[in-house]
Amino acid sequence: MTDLDLSLDAAALTVVLCDIESVSGNEGPLADAVEAALRSLPHLSVDRDGDTVVARTALGRAERVVLAGHLDTVPLGDNLPCRVEDGRIHGCGTTDMKSGVAVALRVAALLPSPNRDVTYVFYDHEEVEAEKNGLGRVARNNPHWLAGDFAVLMEPTGATVEGGCQGTLRADVVLRGHRSHSARSWMGSNAVHAAGEVLTRLAGHRADEVEIDGLVYREGLNAVGITGGVAGNVIPDECRVTVNYRFAPSKSEEEAAAVVRRVLDGYRVEVSDTAPGALPGLSHPSAAAFVEMVGREPQPKFGWTDVSRFSALGVPAVNYGPGDPSVAHQREEYCDIAPILECEQKMLGWLGA
Amino acid sequence: MTDLDLSLDAAALTVVLCDIESVSGNEGPLADAVEAALRSLPHLSVDRDGDTVVARTALGRAERVVLAGHLDTVPLGDNLPCRVEDGRIHGCGTTDMKSGVAVALRVAALLPSPNRDVTYVFYDHEEVEAEKNGLGRVARNNPHWLAGDFAVLMEPTGATVEGGCQGTLRADVVLRGHRSHSARSWMGSNAVHAAGEVLTRLAGHRADEVEIDGLVYREGLNAVGITGGVAGNVIPDECRVTVNYRFAPSKSEEEAAAVVRRVLDGYRVEVSDTAPGALPGLSHPSAAAFVEMVGREPQPKFGWTDVSRFSALGVPAVNYGPGDPSVAHQREEYCDIAPILECEQKMLGWLGA
Repeated sequence: MTDLDLSLDAAALTVVLCDIESVSGNEGPLADAVEAALRSLPHLSVDRDGDTVVARTALGRAERVVLAGHLDTVPLGDNLPCRVEDGRIHGCGTTDMKSGVAVALRVAALLPSPNRDVTYVFYDHEEVEAEKNGLGRVARNNPHWLAGDFAVLMEPTGATVEGGCQGTLRADVVLRGHRSHSARSWMGSNAVHAAGEVLTRLAGHRADEVEIDGLVYREGLNAVGITGGVAGNVIPDECRVTVNYRFAPSKSEEEAAAVVRRVLDGYRVEVSDTAPGALPGLSHPSAAAFVEMVGREPQPKFGWTDVSRFSALGVPAVNYGPGDPSVAHQREEYCDIAPILECEQKMLGWLGA
Repeated sequence: MTDLDLSLDAAALTVVLCDIESVSGNEGPLADAVEAALRSLPHLSVDRDGDTVVARTALGRAERVVLAGHLDTVPLGDNLPCRVEDGRIHGCGTTDMKSGVAVALRVAALLPSPNRDVTYVFYDHEEVEAEKNGLGRVARNNPHWLAGDFAVLMEPTGATVEGGCQGTLRADVVLRGHRSHSARSWMGSNAVHAAGEVLTRLAGHRADEVEIDGLVYREGLNAVGITGGVAGNVIPDECRVTVNYRFAPSKSEEEAAAVVRRVLDGYRVEVSDTAPGALPGLSHPSAAAFVEMVGREPQPKFGWTDVSRFSALGVPAVNYGPGDPSVAHQREEYCDIAPILECEQKMLGWLGA
């Protein structure tokens, strides 16, 4: 097992963490190293569930914050071990999100007596099917491990606070018709033609822009797929439009479904999948102080992230991490050293003051 | 090899022909029997190409008519040997189209000196891919075998003349957009949404009704398929609408393509496949006499049939046969005996008078 030297700065620690390969499903060795390093810190109590490691201070502070990051990465692209060049670390996991994990580990090591109680969560299986997600598993098995007043998910945000996340809903709009031979099309009823009005409504729909805590969540209601047709000489009797609605976190899943049904009133809408958004929680004093401390204009998070799991547990959460999200999941993934050190300093300042 | 007894009436002969199984690709035994039976008739000269048998009188008549029928059937459905019950023959090939073949064979046998020269064509591979079609093969290899002033394709029409056939054109309408994550849909351009206008135009298009020789060909321009979408969280960058246009036989393939391009003006239309229609040719004296002889109101043929192959060779052609087209290709396929005998009598009367 690799010994993690938490006296390294967060950038150097990022390199060490990345070089312990941990593609989803193979987080064990890295989780072992993280657990051992945290157990060596007497101010923390440590729990483990599968390859998720949770460590906590218990100082009786008025507030508790959760710092969380996933240990796994997408599959390698011939991009390990890391290569450091011109102030940039190249390699799998550098931006998404071992640089964020390194920052959290540094806070754990350097602040035996933080000004807020802190829970550190390092979890497995974020980059694969949602049902395998380690954070979700802990939320089911041991939700009290995740209790807190405010959470920071250290996903790549370019060192800006990205607040909450939007919800997502997927539905199928099913159009029915009657088959006939296309040489006698008037004997049938064309289900694909019937989809024209559905697409026109979607194209014409003006999505909401919802301001919450000063962040503007721009929604989107889109067809993400369409399929219909039996054969080249048959009038189609079914057409299916798959719709994805990304909705502001102030809406519930039920409210989101109602929006889709209202826009597509008169059509058969089958909701197949929903996930709630997460409120940014920036009006929470702790979050407001956090944004103030970061010193950059906070942004809304549009894509769905695990902050919504905290939100579902009643814990306001933001995304904040040193990586550039646009290079995640790429062979050319990298992370600049400067924002890693900036995040490290800011987190230490915020919790150590 | 089964000896065909052409002294049987056309209904009894239908049973014999059906009981020689001849699913497409296995026409050999039936073609052998047909060839042998025709060679035994001294007034005919017989040619063969693969499993297509062509026999001709050479009496120097002013006109030549072609009687044609395919020997193959769709796959069996546990519906052979034939079963005769209450004036109806049940079994594979009864309606489509061995009853028509039986009528033509009876004419060949009973009329050594018809009032018009007659060419009899019995061909293979009609029920499968067009490139295997025996009539098409003969049209390429030996077009002079098919020469004539008028052709009767003895496909099932319920003993009514169905004139010509419509043409068919298939095209893809390709819509392009730009991908983006569906959580930031405004960064992309949704190709599926763009298809809405295409479908609306198709749904609103008023298809022509074209009268030719007293028959009204009702056209149809339809989406027969649509596909688009990358993933549930991606704004689609491509959508493809497959369109089928069934057009009156007075239009050329080029004119048909122009209609589609005009309706879908501004969109990228990729024509993938066309087949010309066939004019009914009912103004031809021979055809007019034929319709008069049949004594029923002629109808337009909407679906594409092999009459268009005759049309392409400059031979006006009609469909006329005893079977009911609506039971073709079904396990419950049958043919009533009465229309078989009616067709036999009418054909004998027409060519024997």
